[in-house]
Amino acid sequence: MVTGMEKPYVVGMDIGGTNTVFGVVDSRGNVLATDSVKTQSYSKIEDYVEAVCTKLRPLIESFGGVEKIKGMGVGAPNGNYYNGTIEFAPNLPWRGVIPLAALFEEKIGVPTALTNDANAAAIGEMTYGAARGMKDFIMITLGTGVGSGIVVNGQLVYGHDGFAGELGHVIVRRENGRQCGCGRKGCLETYCSATGVARTAREFLVARPEPSLLRDIPAEEIVSKDVFDAAVRGDKLAQDIFEYTGRILGEALADFIAFSSPEAIILFGGLAKSGDYIMKPIQKAIDDNILKIYAGKTKLLISELKDADAAVLGASALGWEVRDI
Amino acid sequence: MVTGMEKPYVVGMDIGGTNTVFGVVDSRGNVLATDSVKTQSYSKIEDYVEAVCTKLRPLIESFGGVEKIKGMGVGAPNGNYYNGTIEFAPNLPWRGVIPLAALFEEKIGVPTALTNDANAAAIGEMTYGAARGMKDFIMITLGTGVGSGIVVNGQLVYGHDGFAGELGHVIVRRENGRQCGCGRKGCLETYCSATGVARTAREFLVARPEPSLLRDIPAEEIVSKDVFDAAVRGDKLAQDIFEYTGRILGEALADFIAFSSPEAIILFGGLAKSGDYIMKPIQKAIDDNILKIYAGKTKLLISELKDADAAVLGASALGWEVRDI
Repeated sequence: MVTGMEKPYVVGMDIGGTNTVFGVVDSRGNVLATDSVKTQSYSKIEDYVEAVCTKLRPLIESFGGVEKIKGMGVGAPNGNYYNGTIEFAPNLPWRGVIPLAALFEEKIGVPTALTNDANAAAIGEMTYGAARGMKDFIMITLGTGVGSGIVVNGQLVYGHDGFAGELGHVIVRRENGRQCGCGRKGCLETYCSATGVARTAREFLVARPEPSLLRDIPAEEIVSKDVFDAAVRGDKLAQDIFEYTGRILGEALADFIAFSSPEAIILFGGLAKSGDYIMKPIQKAIDDNILKIYAGKTKLLISELKDADAAVLGASALGWEVRDI
Repeated sequence: MVTGMEKPYVVGMDIGGTNTVFGVVDSRGNVLATDSVKTQSYSKIEDYVEAVCTKLRPLIESFGGVEKIKGMGVGAPNGNYYNGTIEFAPNLPWRGVIPLAALFEEKIGVPTALTNDANAAAIGEMTYGAARGMKDFIMITLGTGVGSGIVVNGQLVYGHDGFAGELGHVIVRRENGRQCGCGRKGCLETYCSATGVARTAREFLVARPEPSLLRDIPAEEIVSKDVFDAAVRGDKLAQDIFEYTGRILGEALADFIAFSSPEAIILFGGLAKSGDYIMKPIQKAIDDNILKIYAGKTKLLISELKDADAAVLGASALGWEVRDI
């Protein structure tokens, strides 16, 4: 029988459209070492797995080999926890259903679990971050898109098919909603992602005549960080963009609370770090839209996972939960 | 040690704004006997509990006494499972927080659990009805209001405070939404409850010039059953009312699926029995609005609980789960 002390590490891996980052993590949530490969460089999944393993094996060896690794957790877009697969991920180079957990398990010899990136973030937050000790919370990831990981009764909500928790694709505008990458219109992520903020900036700059620091930037090049920088410098239009974004997000969060009545909603990602510019309008919109029975009960928090490591850390937390092979 | 065979019955109780119905139920879901009191006749909670017990005790005696009763389950508006309380229920005569489970436990001597009526229906469906064997489903109750009971990983979702699952109060119309009894505007239940259907009928009759069987009824007296009867007789306007109602409900259900990816959504209550008039537009709106990853996966079902007994049966199912006193 192997005890936890004899397997003091886990491996976390975050598969993004651009980079795949992986690292060795200890039980206190320290990311001890990381390495990465370019996801898009490998059109064949076998080549990709081989490239990752070529860098991951020496990393594992430097911490005493696979016998010191409790498990590996992988966070990936369209990841399915039940099957250990990535299924029809539009931003990854591999088509169809990819049995990625099994491929790594075979190559590395460590039990491997896989889930989508937002679920991995939620597990990370519950294991190492702001949700420690919470049994009911919702993690909202505000990045290029909007993702979510929902925890109920201390368990991730995977649903009957492993794909639960796509709150970025709840429809928040049924009339004249913005076109979403998913093919539908009015999804939350078309407004409240980083790209949604940039779209709002372009819309506001056309619709409103007033001066703004954002007019110094070619409209198509504006990113959400520019809006933040302008807001900090007192730019009213930039501040209004956050107001608008925060209101739409807060309205949606008030509805999410009616679903699972979480102890907290935890925001993760660049936008969440825009401070009061975004957090105040979110909180106000929650307060203005919440059903009375829930009023003032759900905390609005910012992720405590450190940015650079967060994705690897989140995925690694899953490594503690896997059953042995 | 008492085995299950020695306690073959449970008591189920449904507390409604008008009537309180209670009955003895066996393990196969047969409601063996029921009785009732008028909820509104008792402005003091002590008098109410006494009145219920006066009728419930002989009922229990006729099945062998409390030693044959495994537990009692109570479904009540604004019921809180964690505390066994009814809290600030607007349609009940008692103000504030009422420790109803404890009051009955003390008077009757049977362990008692309490939850809201929609959660009770969900547990009933899981125990005796269409959701047997399901671990992930959503129960939507379409009555005077719209309620919900959400099951994730085989467990009712109560949330951190015991009040999760108020999907009737998700906002479906942010602009010009109908006034809801909860004080907000645009809630799902203002459109998709029985009263919502009647409101739609009155709106359509004003807005549209065409003849309709519904014009034979004084507008303020129209109820959803009238709309159904007219639809069956081929009345186009009545059929359009169901189209409209079904579309709004289906749009909302597509969003709910993005939350918990349930195996099924089960509709309960009078409206659900309007057959294809309502079910077809609901299904179409789900199909038109669902995120691709969920397409065609979630079954849309009608409750299998028999109408007259359903509320008592649902509540009684909770009686099997209570811990002994």
